[in-house]
Amino acid sequence: MKLALQAASAASGQTSINPVVGCVVVNEGRVVGIGAHLKRGEGHAEVHALNMAGDQAKGATAYVTLEPCSHHGRTPPCCERLIEEGVKRVVVAATDPNPLVAGRGIKRLEEAGIEVRVGLLEEESRKLNEVFNKYILTKLPFVTVKTAVTLDGRVATRTGHSRWVTGPEAREAVHTLRHRHAAIMVGVGTILADDSELTTRLSVPGIHPIRIVVDSSLRTPPEARVLNGEAPTVLLTTERAPEERIRTLEAQGAEVLVCGPGPRVDLKLALRKLGEKEISSILVEGGGALNGSLLEAGLVDKLMLFYAPKLVGSEGPPVFAMQGPKEMGEALELTDVAIESYGRDWCVTGYPSNRAKPEPEPEQEGG
Amino acid sequence: MKLALQAASAASGQTSINPVVGCVVVNEGRVVGIGAHLKRGEGHAEVHALNMAGDQAKGATAYVTLEPCSHHGRTPPCCERLIEEGVKRVVVAATDPNPLVAGRGIKRLEEAGIEVRVGLLEEESRKLNEVFNKYILTKLPFVTVKTAVTLDGRVATRTGHSRWVTGPEAREAVHTLRHRHAAIMVGVGTILADDSELTTRLSVPGIHPIRIVVDSSLRTPPEARVLNGEAPTVLLTTERAPEERIRTLEAQGAEVLVCGPGPRVDLKLALRKLGEKEISSILVEGGGALNGSLLEAGLVDKLMLFYAPKLVGSEGPPVFAMQGPKEMGEALELTDVAIESYGRDWCVTGYPSNRAKPEPEPEQEGG
Repeated sequence: MKLALQAASAASGQTSINPVVGCVVVNEGRVVGIGAHLKRGEGHAEVHALNMAGDQAKGATAYVTLEPCSHHGRTPPCCERLIEEGVKRVVVAATDPNPLVAGRGIKRLEEAGIEVRVGLLEEESRKLNEVFNKYILTKLPFVTVKTAVTLDGRVATRTGHSRWVTGPEAREAVHTLRHRHAAIMVGVGTILADDSELTTRLSVPGIHPIRIVVDSSLRTPPEARVLNGEAPTVLLTTERAPEERIRTLEAQGAEVLVCGPGPRVDLKLALRKLGEKEISSILVEGGGALNGSLLEAGLVDKLMLFYAPKLVGSEGPPVFAMQGPKEMGEALELTDVAIESYGRDWCVTGYPSNRAKPEPEPEQEGG
Repeated sequence: MKLALQAASAASGQTSINPVVGCVVVNEGRVVGIGAHLKRGEGHAEVHALNMAGDQAKGATAYVTLEPCSHHGRTPPCCERLIEEGVKRVVVAATDPNPLVAGRGIKRLEEAGIEVRVGLLEEESRKLNEVFNKYILTKLPFVTVKTAVTLDGRVATRTGHSRWVTGPEAREAVHTLRHRHAAIMVGVGTILADDSELTTRLSVPGIHPIRIVVDSSLRTPPEARVLNGEAPTVLLTTERAPEERIRTLEAQGAEVLVCGPGPRVDLKLALRKLGEKEISSILVEGGGALNGSLLEAGLVDKLMLFYAPKLVGSEGPPVFAMQGPKEMGEALELTDVAIESYGRDWCVTGYPSNRAKPEPEPEQEGG
């Protein structure tokens, strides 16, 4: 199952709104097939692994990181294929929260006389698909706020200078994160200050995510590098944005989404509209203002704070511009915290306590 | 040598301005003596270990974490005792920076025909005596700033509420830190806000350090708990403090040190005066103002930042109230950074890049 999870993990960021899934087929103690779901609309993990196994799938055990699907989607159901090939036993890490599956896959396998075990390395599998698990239930993107920050909680010096807070290892990790997200989001301040291109720059080719700029009055210059056509660009704005300006920016290839009357972009509405566009995950690389607005509104699912062992003083811009609570006991807490080091820096990852838990939609049937 | 370092470490905080030293005597592969210097004026590590070894010291190897002393201080020189007992070989972790020793101990042993090796686990030994190593050369206290801080760099919420930032494990660790320091320092703001007692509260009895309050206009109330007599209290003030008030507070048992004309306490002068009083180490538990003043003045030797996985927003008081540099490249950096976890919290320890390196005084002779 570990190998299956590793195979699944490798496809992170390239399956669009689909989950990442890995499958390993074992017959008499020998691995006879390994597969992963690599791209939406193409073969599922089980299909790749069974193809590799060929005749040896008969009587074998299949380890799958996610419950096999039982419905006809863009590809035929994996359950039927497992049954056809004569697999004897299926070990599943986690059930599929997708209302179209949600336990039906397991039921189908059991009806066909296959022995099914559920829950091996379940936590790891759920974490691997945290994006999918939210999106499939809510149709809202999974929002990760990533920021580089000093030990005193600042994203820049008092003059706004911020190159660089963290070292090369952390910056490289951020490009891998971009590759793994459907979209990147920044505030227009970042565009005006840095003219950022917001593409994935790795030593190997990576996927460029969709670029999203939160820009309530459309101050993004038409010649900005974020409009260079290397990846689609979405500008989130308000009804206050001049029609003329919208047309100019659309002519530059941008898609403009009007989110509320203003003066500020209605971020909740914006996320709903982005979800409708099948954007399942957003990496927020905004400044403290955007970070704070999203966080205070309970719209952040995950925080990745890259700390540099530096201090720049109390006049630098704060990492989260927000009012916060009156008492320490009401502070926003991070759960499931992990710390990883990147060169001299380290990343604190956690899930804010005020995030809306993905709720199953009412039409879902029990699994 | 590891055992010798552990024995030395156990005495941290109880040897006053003396270094902590451990000694292990080994004869034919068997440990025959273990000793540590436990209290200033009492037996040195070598003496305890040799007493335990008795006859078996003859022909043995002594592992000592710090170069044995060659001068008559409050106790006779350890070199002579090692020679007398017929020790064959002495392994030393680090030389003693004390100008009265500084290589002379090693020289004396070698002259007596003892085989000496220097440098085994030297780094660990130097770190264990970082306080002594600074104080013996500069007569200035080693200053450690300890603070509890949120992930967004705040010591309290926007209302000033700060109980508690960190959890019980981190707070217990702070009491161990108090036990290990000669003095605790806070700003008068902490006294006025919390009426802190500033004693060591552990599940086992600990040493109460001297309590120091930075109080430029002597606002400490005569009935404050910091004046309760459980430990000596020093108030650092300026020439602006009213004579009358000085007398009132002295009557309550406080020692008042006038440091400069004001309006703020001359912290550099204050440290010199505290050093003259044989205060070799200070744990600063001030708020952001005191932390920032000390840090910006380059007076901090070590930082211990206890982070809680919490966010309280940008209106909470900052951990270091200071202006800081214009450019990120000029940020104050931490070196030799270590991270340790305490329950849900963790402590980032490091040495600020702007700290004054302890310089040997001119009268010191080479080792």
